[in-house]
Amino acid sequence: MEQLTIVKIGGNIIDDDAALASFLHDFASLPGKKILVHGGGKLATQLSTKLNIETTLIDGRRITDAETLRVITMVYAGWINKTIVAQLQANGCHALGLCGADGNVILASKRNHATIDYGFVGDSSTGHINMLLLSNLLETGLVPVIAPVTHDGKGQLLNTNADTIASLLASALCPLFETRLVYCFEKEGVLLDPEDDRSVMAQLDAQTFDALKSSGQISKGMIPKLENAYAAKQNGVSEVVITHARNIAHLGLAQKTVIVQNALS
Amino acid sequence: MEQLTIVKIGGNIIDDDAALASFLHDFASLPGKKILVHGGGKLATQLSTKLNIETTLIDGRRITDAETLRVITMVYAGWINKTIVAQLQANGCHALGLCGADGNVILASKRNHATIDYGFVGDSSTGHINMLLLSNLLETGLVPVIAPVTHDGKGQLLNTNADTIASLLASALCPLFETRLVYCFEKEGVLLDPEDDRSVMAQLDAQTFDALKSSGQISKGMIPKLENAYAAKQNGVSEVVITHARNIAHLGLAQKTVIVQNALS
Repeated sequence: MEQLTIVKIGGNIIDDDAALASFLHDFASLPGKKILVHGGGKLATQLSTKLNIETTLIDGRRITDAETLRVITMVYAGWINKTIVAQLQANGCHALGLCGADGNVILASKRNHATIDYGFVGDSSTGHINMLLLSNLLETGLVPVIAPVTHDGKGQLLNTNADTIASLLASALCPLFETRLVYCFEKEGVLLDPEDDRSVMAQLDAQTFDALKSSGQISKGMIPKLENAYAAKQNGVSEVVITHARNIAHLGLAQKTVIVQNALS
Repeated sequence: MEQLTIVKIGGNIIDDDAALASFLHDFASLPGKKILVHGGGKLATQLSTKLNIETTLIDGRRITDAETLRVITMVYAGWINKTIVAQLQANGCHALGLCGADGNVILASKRNHATIDYGFVGDSSTGHINMLLLSNLLETGLVPVIAPVTHDGKGQLLNTNADTIASLLASALCPLFETRLVYCFEKEGVLLDPEDDRSVMAQLDAQTFDALKSSGQISKGMIPKLENAYAAKQNGVSEVVITHARNIAHLGLAQKTVIVQNALS
């Protein structure tokens, strides 16, 4: 099967123009079929502040009222997505930007929670990814660039976590491609000691992850990312890696954390 | 040759939620291959005001500094484009939103003017439309929804007039489809007397247009729209119509202005 690389790029890199430009240059040079999923970064919060829209986070998830949804759609699907696409095109990478509503690429449903009203937040599943459209776009040489905005199929846009989208896309496309998933952010990988950049774990198996989660050694923000990573691994994604954005062009040699199911695999 | 309908929807309809919903419902029901091009409306100006960004217009063209470009990209390619796409999808129309940078659909160059610095405003031409990508998307049953933001191929996004984009797309796709172009806005057509909605001209030929332009009877805002309409007609677009957005589903019977080259055609 042909290889497909799905790369997720995080907010801290997006917020840094030079780091983003360097990352996009490297991403453009990656051989083979590929998809880029991007997060949002501080721009949405900054714009909300300027517009006097209050930002509320519960467990790291933004509570998305109607005004926040508009800001997110403008910033993620508008400015960030199109800025990335234009820069990739300039680097000779035939990028095409999409949100989940475009071509019904990611269908989601509004989150229903017993006690918390998350607002316009959407959850999706591998069965609600338009594999056919993505594979058609990939076959014509295009590189989909996905913003973390989805829709419910009834006209409502929804805010969906970008790490989750990357995991779902990688999982959904497994039957068609040998899929690998790379989470890029501003650290070298999963750190055993969050304060020590040299404490990168070369490999992280599910049992160790559970233990580190229980002991509190893996910090709050990393937990949903790692849960998405394990979900992808469980769904048949051939390789799941967490690393610094600057390592994308030389993954083989770079510092990184490889996600594995079992300690001996 | 198969027919392709390119519809441009103007800002005043986009600013009116009920009118927009009704228009999108009707557009979704149009048979055959189709493309929707949308303008921006007052949202960009409102957002600029809230952010204390000054809006300057010269001859109806927005002077686009870096901050204004960001607002335009957020509003046009983000909020408006994705809102329209989600609503079309809800109406069973397989919409996919694009700006000119996506898949290099519309390549433009920054406007070079002897005396006025328009800022990040881009001009394109029929030779710089990615016909192949558009025709591929149309062949797979997708309905492209185009925001009036383009790029220069060197990483710079540019602001391009939506009427012009509609005219260029219709012209560029003439070799592949029997193309018709419909400009939809908040009036019944070209009015002989701008104050009298019943003064719709059923037909407007190039000579009459020139005469009405000279006498000042056609108002300033309509002139670039009509120039785009004539350019399309000259490039071989089979039918160019200007009408009210509410008429889109029953063009044959509706009030409208049909653009013709010669008085006797």
